Amino acid sequence: MNASAAIGVTGLGVMGRNLARNFARNGYTVAVHNRSAGRTHALVEEFGHEGAFVPAESPAEFVAALERPRRLMIMVQAGAATDAVIGEFAPLLDAGDMIIDAGNAHYADTRRREAALRERGLHFVGTGVSGGEEGALHGPSIMVGGSAESYAVLGPMFEKVSAQVDGEPCAAYIGSDGAGHFVKMVHNGIEYADMQLIAEAYDLLRQVAGYTPGEIADVFRRWNEGRLGSYLVEITAEVLAHVDAETGAPFVDVVVDAAGQKGTGRWTVQTALDLASPVTAIAQATFARAASGQSELRAAYAGLPGGTRPKLSRTEAERFASQVEHALYASKVIAYDQGWKMIQDAAAEYGWKIDLGTVARIWRGGCIIRASFLDRIRAAYAADRDLVSLLGEMEFAMEITDAQVPWRETVSSAARRGVPVPAFSAALAHYDTLRAGRLPAALLQGQRDYFGAHTYGRTDRPGAFHTHWAAPGRPETTA
Amino acid sequence: MNASAAIGVTGLGVMGRNLARNFARNGYTVAVHNRSAGRTHALVEEFGHEGAFVPAESPAEFVAALERPRRLMIMVQAGAATDAVIGEFAPLLDAGDMIIDAGNAHYADTRRREAALRERGLHFVGTGVSGGEEGALHGPSIMVGGSAESYAVLGPMFEKVSAQVDGEPCAAYIGSDGAGHFVKMVHNGIEYADMQLIAEAYDLLRQVAGYTPGEIADVFRRWNEGRLGSYLVEITAEVLAHVDAETGAPFVDVVVDAAGQKGTGRWTVQTALDLASPVTAIAQATFARAASGQSELRAAYAGLPGGTRPKLSRTEAERFASQVEHALYASKVIAYDQGWKMIQDAAAEYGWKIDLGTVARIWRGGCIIRASFLDRIRAAYAADRDLVSLLGEMEFAMEITDAQVPWRETVSSAARRGVPVPAFSAALAHYDTLRAGRLPAALLQGQRDYFGAHTYGRTDRPGAFHTHWAAPGRPETTA
Repeated sequence: MNASAAIGVTGLGVMGRNLARNFARNGYTVAVHNRSAGRTHALVEEFGHEGAFVPAESPAEFVAALERPRRLMIMVQAGAATDAVIGEFAPLLDAGDMIIDAGNAHYADTRRREAALRERGLHFVGTGVSGGEEGALHGPSIMVGGSAESYAVLGPMFEKVSAQVDGEPCAAYIGSDGAGHFVKMVHNGIEYADMQLIAEAYDLLRQVAGYTPGEIADVFRRWNEGRLGSYLVEITAEVLAHVDAETGAPFVDVVVDAAGQKGTGRWTVQTALDLASPVTAIAQATFARAASGQSELRAAYAGLPGGTRPKLSRTEAERFASQVEHALYASKVIAYDQGWKMIQDAAAEYGWKIDLGTVARIWRGGCIIRASFLDRIRAAYAADRDLVSLLGEMEFAMEITDAQVPWRETVSSAARRGVPVPAFSAALAHYDTLRAGRLPAALLQGQRDYFGAHTYGRTDRPGAFHTHWAAPGRPETTA
Repeated sequence: MNASAAIGVTGLGVMGRNLARNFARNGYTVAVHNRSAGRTHALVEEFGHEGAFVPAESPAEFVAALERPRRLMIMVQAGAATDAVIGEFAPLLDAGDMIIDAGNAHYADTRRREAALRERGLHFVGTGVSGGEEGALHGPSIMVGGSAESYAVLGPMFEKVSAQVDGEPCAAYIGSDGAGHFVKMVHNGIEYADMQLIAEAYDLLRQVAGYTPGEIADVFRRWNEGRLGSYLVEITAEVLAHVDAETGAPFVDVVVDAAGQKGTGRWTVQTALDLASPVTAIAQATFARAASGQSELRAAYAGLPGGTRPKLSRTEAERFASQVEHALYASKVIAYDQGWKMIQDAAAEYGWKIDLGTVARIWRGGCIIRASFLDRIRAAYAADRDLVSLLGEMEFAMEITDAQVPWRETVSSAARRGVPVPAFSAALAHYDTLRAGRLPAALLQGQRDYFGAHTYGRTDRPGAFHTHWAAPGRPETTA
């Protein structure tokens, strides 16, 4: 067999199959392999006309089909299956060859695998691919980790098959070892926060403004024309406008209100806790999904009293809806700011040189959180690479300033009306925490010194101090 | 050497030394050992008059000093040091002997160690000890895991040296393998939430009511006489009343407002995410500490606009303070309810048979969150062992009902006034989430089905359904 394939894909589930087709449709010869050969042949039979596929039945045949340096993409389940496939193929490869893991691996696993394969002269390229089945086929957002050397070879291919926005590809090199999978994880975490914020806005419009799902669909359609314009807002309008064909009821009213999750939100928050990076909107979104599934607890709380909900006039409802737009937008800025800061914190921890504007650029298309908004984040970092927060950029700061009254009124109304807004409130509390001149964390330090002799710092000079609380006199310098 | 010691303690740092003294002062003969013998001799020299100590220089000598079945308590750093000490002593022990880990181990490590030592016929007893140095000496709260068989031997000893409240010991058997360390971890998580709630109440009284630290100390002193009466509220009053001897300023104003943490809050939230148990107050408290230390972010947000803070009259301030008492109490009930539910969720996951009332009983004394309030939790579970939530108990439900207006007004004011109340809001949002008849999680399920074909449930019949969103007609049954 000729070594003619520019890339090989092993693992031909729907994501692997669609990525293989995407490469083929873009002119690359693609070797395809699956543990059971049936899928391999089905792919070539059904989609062979789309491009040049080289079906391989055995691992040896698959590897032999690849041009050197070999580019072997694995698209199998994260975890043990990925390790098994690596264990199977790595011995068949030569120094300089590349194994691309395009699955949803945990970045810590990617770091471990990259280090192990580097020892053997192989490049392990952990690659985050966002956009689901459709994205994989028509152009996903691609976040690439691993060595810069491997990206020199792979980059042009990824950039060709990715989504394109304003003539720019939604694929880029993020940073070494696990940086690609890390950033993909944060993408998903932000997606959790964004969805929860949208859900809270919907709930407020329904419970406080008294709108029907159809009316709220119209509101989201209007919002989608403005600064909130995004894939998630667009599909929210469609979901809310949908009427169940069987019952004639609004679709959203026949769906069981317990949200599922596949784990990346959880990973994001667990990792943020290790990094001491406060991603509170993502945390609240993840726990909100968990709470929705706590049926025993929901039964125990059902019937307890809530807030009062006076009926709003048409005009009052419209004014309220416009407040909610401000609150949704401001909370979204904070949630994204938390995500970007988490990437900065991880970059510092792991020595990744991540260009934060590039992250925004490649999320403008192909992925779930794609939005016009991301182009502004890209521009903000393009103007100042070292921006610590989005609020350091003039336009975002002005929008947040304009949002003050409606944002606060929205959170305040939700509390009084008994509508749960965990993510809205977390975003506002984050904002108020960070802009506060002094925080009550000083009291916490006093308490911790009192009961555990944990010591505290003083504002007037460096050092660690302890007070003998039984008979407090002058503090003792402990370090 | 005679095998005369009822218990042995190895690792004579301040916690180990104080526990050893506590056992000796209660009439037990205590073998003492430390890697470097200096500490062993210092202990006997300084405190030998308090009871019967048997100093041992070598591991062999230490083990030989113990009555059978041997009870060997290790009090070293969690992690690798603990494994090293186990590795050193286990080979010297016989079937039926007990190794008690009284350090701050992660419960997952305890589960691993227990399983490994069980294979060798040894009892590994992961034991949570709360109360710091003073507690260790005068009576801590002791949460015991491991086998019921080992508790039959150890229980009377632990119950004797623990704190006593109303004639009952603050020590008990929690459940098998890691249950003791798990419950200790949740204790610390609840402690984070309680401290943060207190800090937010202080901040509101200062920023909104305009009180001085001294005046707020008086408020907390009054609160300590009522249903909020607790060690943490008591020491809060003392910390706030303290005036810095060097500057004459309120102590709390000279302390650096960046809160430290030692990791158990983080562990609690990370574990809760795995259990899908929504401990949002603990999460917000943990992230609030992290945020306080994000100095770059705080600098970036400094100067951004906040809410308006009109000056309150004396009467208005007093009314506001009484609202905050309701809000603090209600939020505390929710935070504790989250912690208890997390213990229930873990018990279901790991097959622990935990008596939830016992947990409340042994936290009434000896530990940081000790409070009269815990006696009511104990009583609630004594009346109904299967209580899913504290709010299922009449008196708590009535208090929460009474707190509705002031609790909501407090959170609402904080939003309008720009005072960060992440934990207060999280508690209120949790309450409103769980009591809601319908949650916007239904919309999330629609979005997830739209972009990822994740399927959804229907309220009118069982099954998993998928809508073809490009041309939505009747849903497709997928399972």
